[in-house]
Amino acid sequence: MPLLGLYAMNGGEGPNSYAQNSSYQRGVVDAAKPIIEEEIATKLDVGHVFSTHVKPFRIADFGCSTGHNSFPAMQIITESVQKKFRSETSQIPDFQVLFNDQVFNDFNTLFRSIPPQKNYHAAAVAGSFHERLLPKASLDFAYCSCALNWISEVPKAVRDDTSPAWNKGRVHYTGAVQEVFEAYSNRYANDIGSFLEARAEELVSGGLMTLLVPAAPCFEHSETFYTTQSELELIGSCLVDMAKKGLIGEEKVDTFNFPLYFTIPQELKAIIERSNSFSIERMEILNNPGKCTLRSADARATYLRATCEGLLKNHFGSEVMDELFDRYTKKIAASPLFLDPDNEKSIIILVILKRKAE
Amino acid sequence: MPLLGLYAMNGGEGPNSYAQNSSYQRGVVDAAKPIIEEEIATKLDVGHVFSTHVKPFRIADFGCSTGHNSFPAMQIITESVQKKFRSETSQIPDFQVLFNDQVFNDFNTLFRSIPPQKNYHAAAVAGSFHERLLPKASLDFAYCSCALNWISEVPKAVRDDTSPAWNKGRVHYTGAVQEVFEAYSNRYANDIGSFLEARAEELVSGGLMTLLVPAAPCFEHSETFYTTQSELELIGSCLVDMAKKGLIGEEKVDTFNFPLYFTIPQELKAIIERSNSFSIERMEILNNPGKCTLRSADARATYLRATCEGLLKNHFGSEVMDELFDRYTKKIAASPLFLDPDNEKSIIILVILKRKAE
Repeated sequence: MPLLGLYAMNGGEGPNSYAQNSSYQRGVVDAAKPIIEEEIATKLDVGHVFSTHVKPFRIADFGCSTGHNSFPAMQIITESVQKKFRSETSQIPDFQVLFNDQVFNDFNTLFRSIPPQKNYHAAAVAGSFHERLLPKASLDFAYCSCALNWISEVPKAVRDDTSPAWNKGRVHYTGAVQEVFEAYSNRYANDIGSFLEARAEELVSGGLMTLLVPAAPCFEHSETFYTTQSELELIGSCLVDMAKKGLIGEEKVDTFNFPLYFTIPQELKAIIERSNSFSIERMEILNNPGKCTLRSADARATYLRATCEGLLKNHFGSEVMDELFDRYTKKIAASPLFLDPDNEKSIIILVILKRKAE
Repeated sequence: MPLLGLYAMNGGEGPNSYAQNSSYQRGVVDAAKPIIEEEIATKLDVGHVFSTHVKPFRIADFGCSTGHNSFPAMQIITESVQKKFRSETSQIPDFQVLFNDQVFNDFNTLFRSIPPQKNYHAAAVAGSFHERLLPKASLDFAYCSCALNWISEVPKAVRDDTSPAWNKGRVHYTGAVQEVFEAYSNRYANDIGSFLEARAEELVSGGLMTLLVPAAPCFEHSETFYTTQSELELIGSCLVDMAKKGLIGEEKVDTFNFPLYFTIPQELKAIIERSNSFSIERMEILNNPGKCTLRSADARATYLRATCEGLLKNHFGSEVMDELFDRYTKKIAASPLFLDPDNEKSIIILVILKRKAE
């Protein structure tokens, strides 16, 4: 099950859709807004990007899902860039925004949701952002929010029952043996490397990139606070319970793993520094107000369902999804830890990068 | 019912899909292939388009539907352009193809159908091609096949029961009073004008455009041969029959009209010449081998269903579609005129235009 691109956030606009259940991710946009505005005002090199004549200014959002959190972000970026141009030149370029997500993303909902009053030409690009998606030196600004926690595939060793990293009886590295964690960690470093390499090709010299990366404060696992990993562990325990009851096969659980990884700031910084194409203009931890929007067990469970159901459906079948998320909702409700936003220690790392001149 | 963008070719890949029922349109691509190759070889101004440095070469297909006929066309164009570059320079640009269709087109099927071995970066753009869709001077080659027969909306006068152009009891201009035809004809001239104006803004100076326009040899209507208009008249008669039987409301038929117009070569030439932005590099009538692919009444009926069902569903409801197309299939089967490809006098006008320097 390499899973490459065979899943995406839940499409449409129904009760379990990503569009209706991504207030957490929307909070990230709100928190990043003043920083993005400031960085564009101070770091965007208008003269450099537009050396000969006014050409279109292209922005891409890598991992846009159905767009509902992307539209406000693109508004922030285009308005900040316009302001910067107005302050330095008399000409404002035409904008084009390229919305990217996996091939199985619901692009129909994306296109039907684009705000009619937008100040840019919109286009969509399907495919994994771990690979090249755009022509060489065709992009002026890259953006990626709440998406780089997805790795390109579950590491092979984790799926291999002859490997010391075989992750039997678990669906994620949390609480697993060190080999499992290391396999994920290596995959992550490679994937971020591929992402940066692809963007380095696509971005013009001097082009800016904003990354908003879901992460953890540290690699230790504590019972006094939780991160998104704890939620994956909890849904894993629901799957194990269902296998014990014979509702799903045990081997189905053994062969399933979430392709998700939560880095820590030091690790991410080291990976970016190994890539030679970008300078780090800014790096900080965001306080995400979206954390406080998931107060009920139902809301928190649907939040996970909106992002992971496609993946779970592919592996376990759609007929067990309601049962799984009912069990998961009950487990969350029974554990007060998950309903107090103060206990939630997941972080968002904001990174602003600049493409070095070649 | 302005219908703007609220319909599209049938999506998916099922039995009534456009993907499965567009061999007629595929024939157009095959017939145009040698001409497009020759025109790119002789008319594409590599030096002009790439005056300073190698930048991406962008091609857009306006009205791509789910892409099945677009992919071979894009292959022809990219290969011809590569060949031209190889013959004149040592550098081959990166290609980006922008697939455009109405907002309600099935872009999910489009993205999932893109050939993995393509030699370009793909993107999609949703919206009416009668309007601006891309940044200024961002496009090197425009293509539009079997799409410019769709007008942007049914003329208001045709829908107005106080107007002399009110089209009571008919669903198209064929066989209607002269005022109805004139209302359509004016709308068409305006729409082609808007299309050319939008493309003139988007194309670089020297950029080429290939139009493959469904048309008629003349405006007279004859019983000894038929064009696509005759098919619209025939499905109109099915709708009138169904209204008489009380299966649909009579006023529903009176308020429905197909937003389709079939120009003739002289008229199209005059409209293009009125637009000052393009030179006509070539204009001829194509012999479409796709005509011969619709030999059975079923195939011919499903061909129309794949293109017009979305529109009909919106107005009459999906519950009467099977009945409507059953009746239509029987009428076609009963009329031998429609099953002999020699009687089919619809034509495809091929036009190659070049964007004049500003």
